[in-house]
Amino acid sequence: LDDEDTDRVYDLVEGLHPADIADLFELFDERERLTLAGAIRDLMGSEVIAELNDWVREALMEALPADVVAEIAEQLDTDDAVAMLEDLDEADQQAVLAEMEPEDRAAIESALSYPEESAGRLMSRELVAVHESMTVGDLIDFLREHRELPTEFWEVFIVDPMHRPIGTCSLSWILRTPRNIPLYDVMARDQTLIPADMDQEEVALRFQKYALISAAVVDPAGRLIGQITVDDIVHIIQEEAGEDALLLSGAGDGDINEPILLTVRARLTWLVVNLATAMLAASVVGLFQGAIAKFALLAVLMPIVSGMGGNAGTQTLAVAVRAIATNQLTDSNTVRMILREFRIALANGFALGLLIGVGTWLIFSNPLLGAVIASAMVINNLVAGLMGILVPVTLDKFNVDPAVSSAVFVTTATDTMGFFSFLGLAVVVGLA
Amino acid sequence: LDDEDTDRVYDLVEGLHPADIADLFELFDERERLTLAGAIRDLMGSEVIAELNDWVREALMEALPADVVAEIAEQLDTDDAVAMLEDLDEADQQAVLAEMEPEDRAAIESALSYPEESAGRLMSRELVAVHESMTVGDLIDFLREHRELPTEFWEVFIVDPMHRPIGTCSLSWILRTPRNIPLYDVMARDQTLIPADMDQEEVALRFQKYALISAAVVDPAGRLIGQITVDDIVHIIQEEAGEDALLLSGAGDGDINEPILLTVRARLTWLVVNLATAMLAASVVGLFQGAIAKFALLAVLMPIVSGMGGNAGTQTLAVAVRAIATNQLTDSNTVRMILREFRIALANGFALGLLIGVGTWLIFSNPLLGAVIASAMVINNLVAGLMGILVPVTLDKFNVDPAVSSAVFVTTATDTMGFFSFLGLAVVVGLA
Repeated sequence: LDDEDTDRVYDLVEGLHPADIADLFELFDERERLTLAGAIRDLMGSEVIAELNDWVREALMEALPADVVAEIAEQLDTDDAVAMLEDLDEADQQAVLAEMEPEDRAAIESALSYPEESAGRLMSRELVAVHESMTVGDLIDFLREHRELPTEFWEVFIVDPMHRPIGTCSLSWILRTPRNIPLYDVMARDQTLIPADMDQEEVALRFQKYALISAAVVDPAGRLIGQITVDDIVHIIQEEAGEDALLLSGAGDGDINEPILLTVRARLTWLVVNLATAMLAASVVGLFQGAIAKFALLAVLMPIVSGMGGNAGTQTLAVAVRAIATNQLTDSNTVRMILREFRIALANGFALGLLIGVGTWLIFSNPLLGAVIASAMVINNLVAGLMGILVPVTLDKFNVDPAVSSAVFVTTATDTMGFFSFLGLAVVVGLA
Repeated sequence: LDDEDTDRVYDLVEGLHPADIADLFELFDERERLTLAGAIRDLMGSEVIAELNDWVREALMEALPADVVAEIAEQLDTDDAVAMLEDLDEADQQAVLAEMEPEDRAAIESALSYPEESAGRLMSRELVAVHESMTVGDLIDFLREHRELPTEFWEVFIVDPMHRPIGTCSLSWILRTPRNIPLYDVMARDQTLIPADMDQEEVALRFQKYALISAAVVDPAGRLIGQITVDDIVHIIQEEAGEDALLLSGAGDGDINEPILLTVRARLTWLVVNLATAMLAASVVGLFQGAIAKFALLAVLMPIVSGMGGNAGTQTLAVAVRAIATNQLTDSNTVRMILREFRIALANGFALGLLIGVGTWLIFSNPLLGAVIASAMVINNLVAGLMGILVPVTLDKFNVDPAVSSAVFVTTATDTMGFFSFLGLAVVVGLA
């Protein structure tokens, strides 16, 4: 690629799967990506575009004229076209839509009218829906005759005259059933219907829980308007589940293809909030400056108490956030989980307190100092365990995403209480 | 349930989906679970058992006699039966296997011979494989006649006489093709084959990347021995992607149904390792006891420098671990990513340094102290950014899971360098 040996690049790329070509793009930097796109122009089919990382795709799309983007969008399924266009800014989006065929444009505009990250954006309008009066034979003939139907589908939806879904038929049942049997004898009547405005995280949990391959999306009147298939959901599950670690650390969406200025802004915002809480914790230490000046060893040991509290709090927090995200922690078992974390914190606090207490006593030949740090360790572990679960549960009650904002509260608590309990106890027992 | 009103409980539960019954179990504590299991004995079908959380299921299975467990295992697909039996201890497992039909036993024993978390454990042996000489019509007749075939499948595998997969046929293509067309004209020849010993995380990435619904599992000789379907993979993706936040925090597998003693042990191990590194950082502070005794304000400010470094390091780490887990960070873009993190760290370091430096100067009317803390902040942010990416990349090179052990190294570096740079600079410029 560096030598601009276009033919050789083309030959190398030609045999690859679209998903692999998309990956290849992500490995290069921005300048090289444009060169590569130029070299393999006619291999850049809609499948490759659909597989690209959001940021990489957005940058490529912005470099292309609106009519080319419109042409690509028309080749894609509605859901992929929406994913591509929703990232563009308003003006570019309008320019592209203006270049599209009226029918495709209407489908995309209607999808864009649903909130971001909702089922309405995810769904594809291409589906097979038939009436229950059909027999298996009718259905097979219908499928063979209608060439315009989608090529890949896994279930057929059965609808009533109002176009409301009343059942689904897995293709394997259809294949195994004699031609003369009516579909209403084959179809499954209980199905998971997805309202178009349902959040994608909730959709993903449904797919996972009920092991769905595809599901009908309905409008508020209960009419079938689209389907969501599991291959689209797999990406969502990956994203939503992996997001927690990034959100807990304040790393924004953590995408390594995000423009660097956006990354700096996202991370810096979080760091500045943490700076404020660090200063709060420091002001607690400030209260004890006199004691520290008299007995500087306190300053040496105090970060151990606060740091260990922070670690224990982070553990509890990670578990609680995950349990809330997967609907495992709900109102009915919150009290049990709080008690569970309390017992764990007590056990860990005593074990760590004993270890550091005896260690301090032996190293500095000061049993009183050992007792103080051991007690502070127990107290701070309890603070960590309780805050680690109470903060995310409370935030969740107020509909705030616990992964985004819990960590600040928990580390503020463990830092300030760590310093306060250790230095306070030291002063009370007369160590300084 | 508390009133032991069995009939009412039964009526309430009867209409639920198996996955919902499984969820219901997880909401109760251990004693209540057994009562519930007693009350709804005949609703406890194999689907419910398969949906239960690992720990809850293990506890229930251990309370049941081996022949009842064997009976449940025989009703399950191989993959679900394996998932159920692999958690039991060796003796119980043997007892259950001894009670099973020879054929089912052989299938499960062969699955258990593959490593844990490998494709061989995940795959189901129930699949439809036919020869390429068949026509679409032959296949449909074959499926209608053979009642013992699995009821739900999404693709038909085409094999050669050696039983090696040579193509796959999506059911929708079969339904849409006239009866007289041979399968070799319909099937897709390029398919993703999964070796039986492939790690489940890698399998999940393949499914996600190529948007697979099912895939053929092959033995080392290339023969088709099973299939993995996307509904099994969805759980793996959830687990593997969500695991990072738990592993980074040292919270073990973070399952809220895990027996409490195992949880305490997992978390305590991590905390003790961190205690050692906290003591290492404390010993750095110990070097400067004299300076702190003279100028106690240093002890007040030093946790800000170390803490902010820790936060920045955790951000970079979360991003790097995620990028490695999703194969976005590979050899070919490592250098670019290190430079990216370096630039982010520099930008954040200067911004935070300026903020805290000017703040310190104004609050304590001490410009020199402001300059020292600002410089220490820049240095520690660079340490955080570089260690945050270099540690996980290096561990990954040595085939150590970066999510498990990176955090200890990174926080040790940011703590010690935070204290050392701030206190060291303060001494060098003559503040104490």
